[in-house]
Amino acid sequence: MEELKEAIRTRGIGIGMDVVKVDSFLNHRIDVDLSTKMGQAFREAFKGEDIDCILTVEASGIAVAITTAQAFGNVPVIFAKKGDHKNVGSDVYTADVFSFTHGTMNTVRVSRKYLPAGSRVLIIDDFLANGEAIEGLRSIVEQAGCTLVGAGVCVEKGFQPGGEKLRKEGVKVVSLAIVDAIEDGHVILRDD
Amino acid sequence: MEELKEAIRTRGIGIGMDVVKVDSFLNHRIDVDLSTKMGQAFREAFKGEDIDCILTVEASGIAVAITTAQAFGNVPVIFAKKGDHKNVGSDVYTADVFSFTHGTMNTVRVSRKYLPAGSRVLIIDDFLANGEAIEGLRSIVEQAGCTLVGAGVCVEKGFQPGGEKLRKEGVKVVSLAIVDAIEDGHVILRDD
Repeated sequence: MEELKEAIRTRGIGIGMDVVKVDSFLNHRIDVDLSTKMGQAFREAFKGEDIDCILTVEASGIAVAITTAQAFGNVPVIFAKKGDHKNVGSDVYTADVFSFTHGTMNTVRVSRKYLPAGSRVLIIDDFLANGEAIEGLRSIVEQAGCTLVGAGVCVEKGFQPGGEKLRKEGVKVVSLAIVDAIEDGHVILRDD
Repeated sequence: MEELKEAIRTRGIGIGMDVVKVDSFLNHRIDVDLSTKMGQAFREAFKGEDIDCILTVEASGIAVAITTAQAFGNVPVIFAKKGDHKNVGSDVYTADVFSFTHGTMNTVRVSRKYLPAGSRVLIIDDFLANGEAIEGLRSIVEQAGCTLVGAGVCVEKGFQPGGEKLRKEGVKVVSLAIVDAIEDGHVILRDD
């Protein structure tokens, strides 16, 4: 998606060999116009698919999950919660997810009642690197007896294995921008 | 706001004396149509005010912060991060916030560069109980030399002191629904 790529080119910062800092528009300060357009781009990419709900994980996936849900005519968004949430209760699906950013293992939880069996689920997240978060959400979709329509991510790190692994396993993964490398602080995008 | 009140009446659950469970439409599964309309209601309530950005805190404030930002013509949303985030860096404003739900103290952080001095900031959050989260965000707004236009919250617990305290201190607080009590599992709304 050209507008996201342009934002990454002009406002993204590469750090070291593998960090893509996009917190000026994606995951700390949110460019709401861009977020709305990314939702429409996911709608276009999954056109013709019936979607019953969108599944993401707190926190930085929520914004684009909402705008994608709006583009799909206001389907509900369910966001998986991290940690031991009092509010979630015990009747939950869980998955263990390793966080690349924080170097920690998190358990993510979704109340069973919000994923009725048979639902057609679209996973949305801001980043895809090693694929741990999306694999965790995918496991929850399977535990619930739902159908995974696909996964839409804003930024895929093409030099980490998550995207390739998911596609090999038959998941339709749509990335709005793919980063191929970080070189001297510059973010090198695929197709640039 | 009548639609939110109706959602609380029909889908909200009161637990014990003080817990209002609205995770079927507000803070785990999100009713995106309602969220969009709540954003418009905040726009209406703060009509005539110049707003440069919206400030919230992860995670469950993000959805309605985004829809409010859309209603204000796509102003940026900044969400304060909890915990020690690698991604945020050290050049941050911080505030300590006690979580009513989890019984823990969290430090929330906002990168200094996303709150330029003089900005007019609207705080948005899903809940207002003891007011700790909003007081924390307010402290960050002050540290940044910004102007607090007001605070919009979806659900205020009128039987806890946060709303009254903030209003006494001169903050314009707009709550779309105020819960006055929990009685036998029922949520008693003000003006009902």
